[in-house]
Amino acid sequence: MTDQTINEGLENVIVAETRRSYIDGDAGELVIAGYPLAELAEHATFEETVFLLWNDRLPTAEELASFRADLAAYRDLSDATLDLLRAAAADDADPMDALRMGVAAATLGHETDGPEDEARLLVAQLPTIVAAYWRLRNGNEPVAPDGDLSHAANYLYMLTGEKPTDAETRGLETYLNSVVDHGLNASTFSGRAIVSTETDLVSAVTGAVGALKGPLHGGAPGPVLDMLLDIHNSGDAAGYVEDKLDEGERIMGFGHRVYNVRDPRAAVLSSAAESFYESGGERAFFETAKTVETTTTDLLSERRPDLSLATNVEFYTAVLLHGIGIPSELFTTTFAIARVGGWTAHCLEQLDDNRIIRPRSAYVGGENREWQPVEER
Amino acid sequence: MTDQTINEGLENVIVAETRRSYIDGDAGELVIAGYPLAELAEHATFEETVFLLWNDRLPTAEELASFRADLAAYRDLSDATLDLLRAAAADDADPMDALRMGVAAATLGHETDGPEDEARLLVAQLPTIVAAYWRLRNGNEPVAPDGDLSHAANYLYMLTGEKPTDAETRGLETYLNSVVDHGLNASTFSGRAIVSTETDLVSAVTGAVGALKGPLHGGAPGPVLDMLLDIHNSGDAAGYVEDKLDEGERIMGFGHRVYNVRDPRAAVLSSAAESFYESGGERAFFETAKTVETTTTDLLSERRPDLSLATNVEFYTAVLLHGIGIPSELFTTTFAIARVGGWTAHCLEQLDDNRIIRPRSAYVGGENREWQPVEER
Repeated sequence: MTDQTINEGLENVIVAETRRSYIDGDAGELVIAGYPLAELAEHATFEETVFLLWNDRLPTAEELASFRADLAAYRDLSDATLDLLRAAAADDADPMDALRMGVAAATLGHETDGPEDEARLLVAQLPTIVAAYWRLRNGNEPVAPDGDLSHAANYLYMLTGEKPTDAETRGLETYLNSVVDHGLNASTFSGRAIVSTETDLVSAVTGAVGALKGPLHGGAPGPVLDMLLDIHNSGDAAGYVEDKLDEGERIMGFGHRVYNVRDPRAAVLSSAAESFYESGGERAFFETAKTVETTTTDLLSERRPDLSLATNVEFYTAVLLHGIGIPSELFTTTFAIARVGGWTAHCLEQLDDNRIIRPRSAYVGGENREWQPVEER
Repeated sequence: MTDQTINEGLENVIVAETRRSYIDGDAGELVIAGYPLAELAEHATFEETVFLLWNDRLPTAEELASFRADLAAYRDLSDATLDLLRAAAADDADPMDALRMGVAAATLGHETDGPEDEARLLVAQLPTIVAAYWRLRNGNEPVAPDGDLSHAANYLYMLTGEKPTDAETRGLETYLNSVVDHGLNASTFSGRAIVSTETDLVSAVTGAVGALKGPLHGGAPGPVLDMLLDIHNSGDAAGYVEDKLDEGERIMGFGHRVYNVRDPRAAVLSSAAESFYESGGERAFFETAKTVETTTTDLLSERRPDLSLATNVEFYTAVLLHGIGIPSELFTTTFAIARVGGWTAHCLEQLDDNRIIRPRSAYVGGENREWQPVEER
């Protein structure tokens, strides 16, 4: 019964047609619903990007206003969810664990009417859950959402209680757009598998959050930031990089499994960081990051000309989010705040032409075992 | 880019080797970790079945005692989880939604040390969440778990506040054993996909609960029970079945997608129901169920000799669980209380030789779209 191919990881198995995104790893191309990433990311608000992913076209001014209002109406957390986050904070839970709990309970106190409405609820609730949890864990009361602010600006406002600058908001929106969708990554596929039973989107996205938490998935912009701050303090980028390479270690923030040339998200985020640090943040820190980038790529091209290692999405994620003021403990939850746009878009697409996802396994266990009472074992 | 096969549903794709269970739909065979279902289900306690699935062998007396104690120690819910269930009850949430919330929060107030420990926590917590929620939704205070009772007996005790009879406990254990695992069904596969990112088992099982909630997955023993109760009240099985068949409708509780002969779980549950109703429950109701079974199979074999439709797992699940006193609103959550044994077993197996599950999609959307500001759309 094991004579058929075992497709562990499903790496080369196509499970769905999609209009959501397209990755060409050889060309270094990422297309979001027909738009090359660079064409979209720096222009669109996050609300426009999510509307685009759900509807395969950008909204008109009227549709956009209505979509923003719908999202804003779903931002508030129920008292029960706030109590839950309070308890999670008392337990000092990991922010991703708290997010899983909050998303699982997102339906409390909110009526939803079908999958699209569940999708709106989810996109709206994630920033509030993350910001409320972060404040509670740091001994502060949550800041209520401000319905007049955009999705991205409101997230920053709920974290700090202060209205963000335009540069901070634009920087965050470009980040959210850059990582909103990326083919059938593990969390997106998990969400599609769950929703293929025709369950609700809250259940599917709760599962996707749990998958994103896994160290093989969520990426590691946190450690990249730690490295950059260390180097910034020491002032010796070349020394750090040379030591690491001498020890045969890899430098965090370089290289990607899928892209053989530069990750297109890294290019967009690098340019977004450049723009952001022109008007905000600590310019000297940004210069350190640039120095680490050039030093590492120079040294790597000398020592390992066979590899073509450019900065990956984590590198400039760390630089940009740090500049905007997102603490590194929230990098993965902020990633979730972006990716929920893609998760919901994929779930809606799955439901639109659904077939339950139920693969097969090859049995390699025992056969014809006979029962023995416990006394005889 | 779409010249490759699209494996929607992954129906014939093998994604893993497994020692957990084996289904032969043509032979009507279900093997649980080497034991034919009929060899195991009526003998084993649920604790033995779960230990077997995790360890690929039955426990010794000493191991069993220690495993039972470990599970019992994890049964209590934290105050925060109880508050959450109280809020869900005030919202009149679906029991599966409440279970998703409770499982997502299962880590609150409990320390776990690695995947096996998370598995123990999950198996232990599910019955407490379901029973506490059910009592709260019906205006009763939860009944605290009794560490002296077995897993199955304690679930029944927490539902009613009364210690169950041996026949009730045995009936429930046979049910739990019968549905504990069934290859890579949608919820089990969703759990494996999530945990393949090397996240925790609480995240994976929360996702599996969400998948089980879907109407394409969880089955429909509830409607079967409604049908049987209607027929029991009217007393006219033949009339009901003939009317349905005349109208071209299917009779609930007959036939299964995977099994071409009788579902082996149906045989085990039928015999368990037979035994149970000899000493408990309403015998006349059981006779009605038997009459519906023989009437339907007789009429179907006359009218549709091309089909071979026997009672499926839902039919005798409804008969047995109703007899034991499980309300039909809890049939799917009780299914989850069983299947968490399989979910955790598959997650542990996935982690044991892991590869991240990340399939591909075929892009069929637009290309080279150009950004237009909102004013120009």
